[in-house]
Amino acid sequence: MILHDFLESGNGYKVRLLLHWLQRPFTLVEHDILKGETRTPEFLSRKNPNGRIPTLELEDGHMLWESNAILNYLAEGTPYLPTDRLDRARVLQWQFFEQYSHEPFIAVARFMRHFQEMTPERTTLLETEKMPKGYVALDVMERHLSRTDWFVGDGPTIADISLFAYTHVAPEGGFDLSRTPAILAWIARMEALPHHVVLTSRATP
Amino acid sequence: MILHDFLESGNGYKVRLLLHWLQRPFTLVEHDILKGETRTPEFLSRKNPNGRIPTLELEDGHMLWESNAILNYLAEGTPYLPTDRLDRARVLQWQFFEQYSHEPFIAVARFMRHFQEMTPERTTLLETEKMPKGYVALDVMERHLSRTDWFVGDGPTIADISLFAYTHVAPEGGFDLSRTPAILAWIARMEALPHHVVLTSRATP
Repeated sequence: MILHDFLESGNGYKVRLLLHWLQRPFTLVEHDILKGETRTPEFLSRKNPNGRIPTLELEDGHMLWESNAILNYLAEGTPYLPTDRLDRARVLQWQFFEQYSHEPFIAVARFMRHFQEMTPERTTLLETEKMPKGYVALDVMERHLSRTDWFVGDGPTIADISLFAYTHVAPEGGFDLSRTPAILAWIARMEALPHHVVLTSRATP
Repeated sequence: MILHDFLESGNGYKVRLLLHWLQRPFTLVEHDILKGETRTPEFLSRKNPNGRIPTLELEDGHMLWESNAILNYLAEGTPYLPTDRLDRARVLQWQFFEQYSHEPFIAVARFMRHFQEMTPERTTLLETEKMPKGYVALDVMERHLSRTDWFVGDGPTIADISLFAYTHVAPEGGFDLSRTPAILAWIARMEALPHHVVLTSRATP
C-alpha cells in the first residue's frame, strides 16, 4: 500500500495513525501541497481527480481518497470500527461532523497561522468566523466527552482518530483548550494508546 | 421514525428521497432553521447538540444526525448500499467529497441567493469563492459521469442521492449546468427512477 500524503496534514495523519494502531506497513509518498504537487495533470488523472491528499493506492493499483473513507475501509473487521449498525452510523455521524463543522474552522485556522501571511483580511476572517465556529465545534465535543470516554462505544474507534487529528493541534490555530478539560483528558487517553505516533512522524510500522 | 427536517434543505431531502425509494413510512416534523428553531436549548439537548437538521429519531427514541450518516444507516441491507468493501468505501468517498468540496459552495450559493439579502460582501464572496469552487466540484463530477452512469457500481446508490440533492438545484445558486452535459444526463436518470419525489414535497410513502 502506498499512502500519498503531506506530513503536516491532519487529514493524512488520520490514516497514518490508524495504520500504526493496526501495525500495517505502508509506503509513504510525500507531495508538497504548498507547491501545488497534488494539482498536476498527472496527479489529477492518476491519483485523485479532486487534487488532494491523503490518497491511498491499494496493492492492486486502485485509488481511494477522502481521509474518513480511507479510515472506514482500513478499519473494517478491526476493533476500531464497530459491527453494530447504529454504532457504525454514529462513527460516520462524528466523522461528517468533523469534516463539515470542525475541520473548516479548526484545521483552517491552523493552516492560516502556520502557512499563510497574516493579512488584515485573514485576521478578520479568523476573528469573525474561524475562531467562533471552531469553539462551537469544541463545545459540542466537550459536552459529549464530559459524559463518555470515547466518541462511540466503550473504546477508541476511527471516530476518535478523525476528531483527534486536528483537535490535538488546535492550539497551533490559536484555540485555548484549557476551556475544555474533557477534551484535554480525552487527548491524553488517545496519546497513551499503544502504537501512538505523532503528527509529523515519518516512521512506518 | 420521526424525521426532524426543514423542507427547503437539500441535506434533509437526501433522507426523504431514500425513504421514498425504500417506501418506508415516516413522520415529518418541520423546524424553521431561518427562525433558529434548531438552536433552542430543547433541540440542542434532546435532538442534536450541533443544532442542525436532518436529525432522525428512531423508533426507540435514539437520535442520529448528519444526513450522510443517516443515509448509510437506512440503506444498510438494501440495494442502495453495496456490500463489497471497496465499493462501500467509494460511496463514503463521494459523500465526504460532497460535504467538504461541494455543499459549502453549491448549497451555500443557493442559500445566499434564496434566503439572504445580497450585500456587496456576499456578492464578492459568491464571485470570488462560492462560484469558482462550486464549478471545480461540478467538473470533478462531470469527468466521472462521462465514463459511468452512476457514482459507484452499476446502479444508483446513496452516493448518487448525496450528490443529487444540491446538484439538481444548483441553477438556483446561479450555476449553469449546460456546461456539464454528463451531469444533466445523470440528473435525468435519477428523476426517472421509481418512487422519485421532488425536494419540497411533504408527501410520505
